[in-house]
Amino acid sequence: MSSTSTHTILTKQGVSFGSEVLEAFDAQLASQQFTKVFFLVDEHTHEHCLPILLAALSNLKEFEILEIEPGEESKSHEVLINLYYALTELGADRKTLLVNVGGGVVTDLGGFLASTFMRGIAFVNFPTSLLAMVDASVGGKTGIDLGEHKNQVGVFAAALQVYVYPSFLQTLPHPHIKAGYAEMLKHGLIADSNYFYELLSALKAGKLPSETQILSSIHIKAQVVEEDFKESAARKKLNFGHSLGHAIEGCCLANGVQMLHGDAVALGMLGELYLSYKKTRLPKADFIKTTGALRDLYAVKHLNIERKELIHLLLHDKKNEAGELRFVLLEQLGKPIINVPVTKKEAEQAFQFIFDGDE
Amino acid sequence: MSSTSTHTILTKQGVSFGSEVLEAFDAQLASQQFTKVFFLVDEHTHEHCLPILLAALSNLKEFEILEIEPGEESKSHEVLINLYYALTELGADRKTLLVNVGGGVVTDLGGFLASTFMRGIAFVNFPTSLLAMVDASVGGKTGIDLGEHKNQVGVFAAALQVYVYPSFLQTLPHPHIKAGYAEMLKHGLIADSNYFYELLSALKAGKLPSETQILSSIHIKAQVVEEDFKESAARKKLNFGHSLGHAIEGCCLANGVQMLHGDAVALGMLGELYLSYKKTRLPKADFIKTTGALRDLYAVKHLNIERKELIHLLLHDKKNEAGELRFVLLEQLGKPIINVPVTKKEAEQAFQFIFDGDE
Repeated sequence: MSSTSTHTILTKQGVSFGSEVLEAFDAQLASQQFTKVFFLVDEHTHEHCLPILLAALSNLKEFEILEIEPGEESKSHEVLINLYYALTELGADRKTLLVNVGGGVVTDLGGFLASTFMRGIAFVNFPTSLLAMVDASVGGKTGIDLGEHKNQVGVFAAALQVYVYPSFLQTLPHPHIKAGYAEMLKHGLIADSNYFYELLSALKAGKLPSETQILSSIHIKAQVVEEDFKESAARKKLNFGHSLGHAIEGCCLANGVQMLHGDAVALGMLGELYLSYKKTRLPKADFIKTTGALRDLYAVKHLNIERKELIHLLLHDKKNEAGELRFVLLEQLGKPIINVPVTKKEAEQAFQFIFDGDE
Repeated sequence: MSSTSTHTILTKQGVSFGSEVLEAFDAQLASQQFTKVFFLVDEHTHEHCLPILLAALSNLKEFEILEIEPGEESKSHEVLINLYYALTELGADRKTLLVNVGGGVVTDLGGFLASTFMRGIAFVNFPTSLLAMVDASVGGKTGIDLGEHKNQVGVFAAALQVYVYPSFLQTLPHPHIKAGYAEMLKHGLIADSNYFYELLSALKAGKLPSETQILSSIHIKAQVVEEDFKESAARKKLNFGHSLGHAIEGCCLANGVQMLHGDAVALGMLGELYLSYKKTRLPKADFIKTTGALRDLYAVKHLNIERKELIHLLLHDKKNEAGELRFVLLEQLGKPIINVPVTKKEAEQAFQFIFDGDE
């Protein structure tokens, strides 16, 4: 399938982008022999995205739809086990294809479901949220949460193909757009400060990111992943903002407080910029300008979670080694350093900076 | 570590065998940096095998012991989830090593646990049952059951090393030795009929298999696995006896009837030898001699399970394609054919042959 408006971004990561990806997927259905096709959707993508996708598929024969509730609560072992049973009872076999149509929850959960059902069936991703387009659905991280421990269980498993259809963003409410911007801003902070400020202007102006910007973010992510798929070293830089961010997100999850992943990462970046200024010589002017902008856009008035609980979660983070906290910090904008040891006290100060603004 | 009595069998599969493997593992602990070591055992191996292993380890520092109940019931998602929580709460990180000490249940479950915890930590296997030594712990199939569906969830993941310490067999009750023989007899049927008859004599004489025989079986298995790790084609021949066998085992599991995996495979082989005679021209003399011997050793008087349930489970077997049953059958002893379509009626006749002896 060739088309002027479908770009395959990086062959190894298998990401296609553009207005023609629905037809590209239809061609894949025609050329590969799947015994059955299952679509994993949430309530929203079932209503808003799946009909658009189905209408474009002329080569689809037998299929089933699996619907989950929207939200992070669905990335749980209970939902996963129900889906294993659903696949079994609906006659999925080893040559079944799973098509994940949704945000990061659907692509993370669906990727893990496919990679472990009958020791692995093929899956493709149709990310429908901005965050999933630029982050979650690219790079083969799949998994579920274990209670408040984010992504504690999972595997690295590449999708057969990731199809990014930018028009799906039209269906997305603004808070989800803003949360998606947070991961893009992270790409700017770790790779290109001009890109960071460009995105910031677009976000402040209430615009959707341009197709070029979405492509830029996928490029940054895919390149890092290609270098280090299993996160031995280089890939860790994508975790900027995620040590503190995951702790905040996990606490909110455990306490029933609504918090989108991207918003938690934005708060995490606030604290990790602070630590970068304190510990790894991020210039003060950059620290002030970036945290000021992030605070204006992402700060929350009051979060009903305990500092102690945040620290407890942080101490169980996957990124730690031998009980020691390890963060990604910046020595300059666009220049991350991985594996920086951080003390419990420094982490507490970072949380204080995030929530109270003290320096 | 070099020793005259420790053999590394196939480098790619990383299997070590002999009386010196405990010391070889101790050397591995010294040379590799693990932050912590977790031992997964069942009640029996905790009592009989772990003390022997621990006594040999001078380089072991921080460790924890995770104990599960013995038996197939532990290969469940409930036990798996508890183990994820236990690892989390006891401070396991990405550089933790999991050491599986037990039979197939422990090595299957533990391999899956390690491969999915924090998207994969390292694990080694110490198989303690005959079946695990010659089959389960070699080849990277890991997983759990989903209710009565055997190994419905899992991944292919190679252990860092498999350490086969034959003295552990001394602690094994005879029914488990007999069940382990069944997988070895399968190796004979698919690869070498002389080996089949040699094992049969040893089993009838009530002997433990010799070290040479155990090594032969590991060799047969490891060679097939090396050729086709993910079971695209050649590896399927190791499934001889397992289509009908897994259905029998799954039914027993669902109905609370005790049935060891090896014993179920022996019954499955009875039925699949019958189908080989009927469908793929296995010579009548071989059919009569092999099934006669297996029936004498493994036939059960009465099993409290329904034929209908067996067929239902068979129709959901992982090895099927597009709803069609696919079996491994023999055209001669030592000459398997994979992907043979089998009708529901033929499967019913095979069950009848197994349980009623009708031809």
